[in-house]
Amino acid sequence: MIPTLIPLDILKLDAADPLAHKRGDFVLPQNVIYMDGNSLGPLPVGVTERISDVLSQQWGQDLIHSWNAHQWIDLPTTVGEKIAPLIGAAPEQVICCDSISINLFKLVASALALNPQRKIVLSQRDNFPTDLYMAQGLAKLLGEQRCQLQQVTAGQMEASLDDSIAVLMLTQVNFRSGHLHDIKRLTKLAQQHGVLVIWDLAHSAGALEVNLDADNVDFAVGCGYKYLNGGPGAPAFVYVAKRHQADATQPLSGWMGHRAPFDFESDYQAGDGIKRYLSGTPGIISMAALDAALEVFADVDMAQLRSKSVALGELFIRLVREAPSLKPLKLISPTDPARRGSQLAFSHPQAFAISQALIEQKVIVDFRAPDIVRFGFTPLYLRFRDIWQAVQILENIVSSEVYLDAQYQQRNTVT
Amino acid sequence: MIPTLIPLDILKLDAADPLAHKRGDFVLPQNVIYMDGNSLGPLPVGVTERISDVLSQQWGQDLIHSWNAHQWIDLPTTVGEKIAPLIGAAPEQVICCDSISINLFKLVASALALNPQRKIVLSQRDNFPTDLYMAQGLAKLLGEQRCQLQQVTAGQMEASLDDSIAVLMLTQVNFRSGHLHDIKRLTKLAQQHGVLVIWDLAHSAGALEVNLDADNVDFAVGCGYKYLNGGPGAPAFVYVAKRHQADATQPLSGWMGHRAPFDFESDYQAGDGIKRYLSGTPGIISMAALDAALEVFADVDMAQLRSKSVALGELFIRLVREAPSLKPLKLISPTDPARRGSQLAFSHPQAFAISQALIEQKVIVDFRAPDIVRFGFTPLYLRFRDIWQAVQILENIVSSEVYLDAQYQQRNTVT
Repeated sequence: MIPTLIPLDILKLDAADPLAHKRGDFVLPQNVIYMDGNSLGPLPVGVTERISDVLSQQWGQDLIHSWNAHQWIDLPTTVGEKIAPLIGAAPEQVICCDSISINLFKLVASALALNPQRKIVLSQRDNFPTDLYMAQGLAKLLGEQRCQLQQVTAGQMEASLDDSIAVLMLTQVNFRSGHLHDIKRLTKLAQQHGVLVIWDLAHSAGALEVNLDADNVDFAVGCGYKYLNGGPGAPAFVYVAKRHQADATQPLSGWMGHRAPFDFESDYQAGDGIKRYLSGTPGIISMAALDAALEVFADVDMAQLRSKSVALGELFIRLVREAPSLKPLKLISPTDPARRGSQLAFSHPQAFAISQALIEQKVIVDFRAPDIVRFGFTPLYLRFRDIWQAVQILENIVSSEVYLDAQYQQRNTVT
Repeated sequence: MIPTLIPLDILKLDAADPLAHKRGDFVLPQNVIYMDGNSLGPLPVGVTERISDVLSQQWGQDLIHSWNAHQWIDLPTTVGEKIAPLIGAAPEQVICCDSISINLFKLVASALALNPQRKIVLSQRDNFPTDLYMAQGLAKLLGEQRCQLQQVTAGQMEASLDDSIAVLMLTQVNFRSGHLHDIKRLTKLAQQHGVLVIWDLAHSAGALEVNLDADNVDFAVGCGYKYLNGGPGAPAFVYVAKRHQADATQPLSGWMGHRAPFDFESDYQAGDGIKRYLSGTPGIISMAALDAALEVFADVDMAQLRSKSVALGELFIRLVREAPSLKPLKLISPTDPARRGSQLAFSHPQAFAISQALIEQKVIVDFRAPDIVRFGFTPLYLRFRDIWQAVQILENIVSSEVYLDAQYQQRNTVT
């Protein structure tokens, strides 16, 4: 569509944006408004050059020698230490490896072993499914005498925290609604009952201020490919508070977590500190992409980033409210920005078709079953004018009912 | 060093090599003789272009849409199906995911669950350590009432197979010695005792003929970054025989293994067939590199490849034997080529320093503690003249005792 004239107050917001220059750090397709960075972050400019070097020089020319010469062997640690300041973690507590799913299995097992008199893992029924599935996998493996997953609603959470619970496993920002848990409060409450906490930061890391150390969190995991822009299926990260590192062990005890992997001993001896959370050989190409992507954050103040995220979201809500035709879209995210992450979810009976029509008109959003359109607000590359334009396009789609066209009704996408 | 004239009989071997043209499929550093493809395969030419497309077009321009548009979601299956014919597996039994370590954990747990009256996992004391470590991790998690790892020598293996064993977990080709197990014989013997077998094909897949279906193997794993040339830390693969797929489950039950991942149900329901062995989101960049690398095998006959591997190894042994100065090098690999994989291991008290001197002179080999120099024979890009030249260089190093120089004595490498 041909954009209409952008209002002056919107342009002023962009002009005053202290993060405006960060947009240049990303490759973004022309005329696309990308509101799905919470599903897959875009390509940072620096990644292409880095991967080219990893392929042509490191792998191509230096071959096996690169494990030392180009510090491949240190990459899980290097990347972990780059993520640490973004989530309020002092050094030597974060390492990059595997997927969130795999890392959650390690952590739930770790936490249960540290709390051996208890067996219940408490989580939220609408947590991201893989978190629940991994706990279910562990519970099935161990048997109900040793591990049970209890799923409750967000509203039942605090009342469910009692001395029978071993582990509280929650995602800070709900993937559908964007509801933001209070890490400090829930961690404290849990710990008052002797419960160990695991926070999944999939929709938090790189999107808002997280203070794992200050909030006395026990364990955490997070995602490399959403707000950290590490590329499709980028490796995840795991955080273990220093105070637990001497005692905590994890069952996926592969050779990279051994105290001396290249001594090739036949008995496992856990490595020092966070390193014991490694399992197999790290995927260097994907991890190098994430490492390069994290350079984008080197000069970013997380408070400033959060502040812009809130401003983008609030502008979106205001513009939607000002458009009479958008009344049928029901905001299901918290209206208080302090209680939501960096996304907005609206429900509509035709959410799928509306999502398809938006995507067709280059506003990239996510549909989440059964009836949600999810808009991600990523302050490093979204401008206020993008928000304004996205709402204009949304308004056209909804008021014209173009989403009723057969092309938008057909369900064939998977994400 | 300046190469001396290559003997005519060696040149004739290269001239008659039906695989000679495959060398052109790889990027190889100039004047390097790369005998470490069993640790990290070199860069296939096609990978660079593929990754460039994955970055610039798929991730950079098409973003989240690529999960469908560029079949990212199918990549674990696509890659698995490309590996299947290399290991004698009919379709729908192989999938690409995670690391060997993680996949072994899945399989040992699967096999134990299928054999619930038994608890012993039998393996070899000098198996690759991560295999043992993962079984130890599972044993520690489940407790000795439900899982015990028994480590025996290769010589004790057959006698140790009795009706008390639940699972036999072996690596086909020993990472140090190159000793090759008889999959058919051991699988049959194990199954006569009601034992389920897991074969680790880390040093086999892409190096020799493997016939998982014909040999009635139950489960297998293998490596993407050795003979398959998928790049550093490339994702691994897992094989589950069709006959077990309905009943087998695995505990690392992440969302990608769910029967309908994008329905976001809160209870895990295992997907059909081999797909349930997936856990988290696949690392697309690394997996795409492996996918491109596998194209190299499209026109390769595995019997022909094995035949050249044997010829390369036999030539190496003959040339070493013909050199009086190389007497102190003791071959610890089986002398019968039918009983070894695609590598040769020689022991020497100065093995570390000799390895360093070889590498300095551009013959890339591996040192394996405590006293082994390991030479890998990779028929897709090694020439007979390379073998001849490597032995020449080795002879110079050993006869001159240059390895006694301080620069070669210092241990600072990790791989």
